Amino acid sequence: MSFDVAKVRADFPILSRQVNGKPLVYLDNGASAQKPRQVIEAITRAYEGEYANVHRGLHFLSNLATDNYERVRAIIARFLKAPHEDEVIFTSGSTEAINLVSYAWAAPRLQPGDEIVLSVMEHHANIVPWHFLRERQGVVLKWVEPEADGSLPPEKVLAAVGPRTKLIAVTHMSNVTGTVVDVGAIARGTDVPVLVDGSQASVHMPVDVGALGVDFYCITGHKLYGPSGSGAIWISRARQAEMRPFMGGGDMIRTVTRETVEYAEPPLKFEAGTPGIVNQIGLGAALDYLMDLGMENIAAHERRLRDHARDRLRSLNWLQVQGDAPDKGAIFSMTMDGAHAHDISTILDKRGIAVRAGTHCAMPLMDFFGITASARASFAMYNTLDEVDALIDGLSFCRELFA
Amino acid sequence: MSFDVAKVRADFPILSRQVNGKPLVYLDNGASAQKPRQVIEAITRAYEGEYANVHRGLHFLSNLATDNYERVRAIIARFLKAPHEDEVIFTSGSTEAINLVSYAWAAPRLQPGDEIVLSVMEHHANIVPWHFLRERQGVVLKWVEPEADGSLPPEKVLAAVGPRTKLIAVTHMSNVTGTVVDVGAIARGTDVPVLVDGSQASVHMPVDVGALGVDFYCITGHKLYGPSGSGAIWISRARQAEMRPFMGGGDMIRTVTRETVEYAEPPLKFEAGTPGIVNQIGLGAALDYLMDLGMENIAAHERRLRDHARDRLRSLNWLQVQGDAPDKGAIFSMTMDGAHAHDISTILDKRGIAVRAGTHCAMPLMDFFGITASARASFAMYNTLDEVDALIDGLSFCRELFA
Repeated sequence: MSFDVAKVRADFPILSRQVNGKPLVYLDNGASAQKPRQVIEAITRAYEGEYANVHRGLHFLSNLATDNYERVRAIIARFLKAPHEDEVIFTSGSTEAINLVSYAWAAPRLQPGDEIVLSVMEHHANIVPWHFLRERQGVVLKWVEPEADGSLPPEKVLAAVGPRTKLIAVTHMSNVTGTVVDVGAIARGTDVPVLVDGSQASVHMPVDVGALGVDFYCITGHKLYGPSGSGAIWISRARQAEMRPFMGGGDMIRTVTRETVEYAEPPLKFEAGTPGIVNQIGLGAALDYLMDLGMENIAAHERRLRDHARDRLRSLNWLQVQGDAPDKGAIFSMTMDGAHAHDISTILDKRGIAVRAGTHCAMPLMDFFGITASARASFAMYNTLDEVDALIDGLSFCRELFA
Repeated sequence: MSFDVAKVRADFPILSRQVNGKPLVYLDNGASAQKPRQVIEAITRAYEGEYANVHRGLHFLSNLATDNYERVRAIIARFLKAPHEDEVIFTSGSTEAINLVSYAWAAPRLQPGDEIVLSVMEHHANIVPWHFLRERQGVVLKWVEPEADGSLPPEKVLAAVGPRTKLIAVTHMSNVTGTVVDVGAIARGTDVPVLVDGSQASVHMPVDVGALGVDFYCITGHKLYGPSGSGAIWISRARQAEMRPFMGGGDMIRTVTRETVEYAEPPLKFEAGTPGIVNQIGLGAALDYLMDLGMENIAAHERRLRDHARDRLRSLNWLQVQGDAPDKGAIFSMTMDGAHAHDISTILDKRGIAVRAGTHCAMPLMDFFGITASARASFAMYNTLDEVDALIDGLSFCRELFA
């Protein structure tokens, strides 16, 4: 099946707008993706005619909303090829998901001196929750550096695993360099539980959590063309059974008395309070949209974008690109002598091109590359080869200004 | 200024729909409220033309989204009459808000044997996070019972405070009985910090956190006619200064290295990761809508609904209403001999009337009243006196069926 990028673009209202008098070239997808009308319409439909609180009602609208909401659990299970639907836990995004694992699985299990292995490429969302355990209970963080080209060989991660290692926490795709990590090889090489931050990878390639053999895999809706505050984490039944609750409130209990609480079975045990009902319904629409296009087709289109961008960026000898692993995603972190990343971003913005400047919530990786900030162009399925060229033209214009 | 309920109703698309062939009479507002088109349009506008991630970008859309998002902090501050805007912390709702206080303020401070005073009327969201502290670190929960009529005299709460009491956690309005608690009198009567669950009260009456003199006050967007996954907690600067972070991730840090983390200043310190950007923008639209109508006008309208409902319900000698405090909100929990609450709900639903049946996330209060479940009719600003009559007719029909 062919991938018709013009047809995809037509589904995204914002892509036809102008910015600073120029057509928008949105290359900040690593931070958050735009939403197709199918998602916006799902949200509107829910609020205009199908809304009530879920789970607790018996009336028509509550049942309808519950059906629409719980159906998304099955959609996510299908998207991640999860063996069991009840292994999908709704969250407000990856940050809440990883904190759930830190608070509910790791905190009550890890002793002082126990180790967590993580890569220097992690997003702060997959670092700070582990720093909490270091600060609060003496857990040791063992860091694995990528190669100079940004790649992260699984054997390097496995070499860091010792007898006190209780968890490996690693990204499936770097949000800075686009490096893809073979998390399946890591999981096959050890019995230590593996948590995968799939925030970026799940947007750009097919994921099969069963085949990967990992224990925790989180996705975040706003990067998956879905609404604010949507997301989920897949957690194997074995790991779920080891977890205490994270947040307390309605829906996650069976009974509450003055003296006691009895918790509900998973996944509800980990989903306290009124959930992000309509957000998750919108996420379901987003994942249906992606699966209709086919993640393999999306990945193939983005490989074309990556190859074209990589070829053209390599030709700019005044530009440094951080990370160049062979099978990386279409994400490019860049620095230019004489121009600060913020200047690059500002100048590109005047041409309608949105890129991000800063540390990309990955300060340890910035340190590794010996830089304080970079400009990042992160592509999505709706980007075009022409937009790659527009980026190159914009960078060349920056070079002229600052050279 | 007069309150034009017909005009308000016209703003809520779902209110013109039918359910089971009858006009919808939505009396499940205590569980979640419907959304005006102003909120739905704000969401659509954000996603169709003004969307990007916040805080971290320099490009046009990111700045625009950040402005739209951060403006909501000021709106919430105005809605709660908060002395300082930076005392407003965004959350996904009251459950996350109260867990934030439990994990970030209470857990590191309370010792075994320290006490938390709370009322038997609390919603599970304001119970289970404290049960966690009992289970995990030996904190003692001291329960205060309401009077037989459901009222909760402040002096009864204050009488439960002892030298080991570290926190009072109390609702501002019961989601079961509608009882309003004079939380200001409680705060004035003690130096112990007071956390107020404002999930219900903030929907139905003006709130002035400064005048109340409490320490923590949380609101939840989905009950305030706002989107799923929106909300906030107001925390006084004094209490904020005593809090460690709750969730770890992006946005809540200043620097991250392999060895250390330095946290951002409040409120960002307590807002990890990409927030519910568009949800909060929608909440801003909802609060603007409420403030345009005027909370005093809304309260006056709802008093008329309450008085009419109370009068008519009192005339039904085969119906028991749990709680009848004089200044209660327009929320009615009901039981009927011979008819289970679920049956009542189902029969009313056939007539298009949505009420909730169950324990309303308040099992200790159900125990107090000696019931296992009730049917609850909870009114909102868009309900009418005719809808009260429709409820009474529906209940009478139930009575005929089950008598």
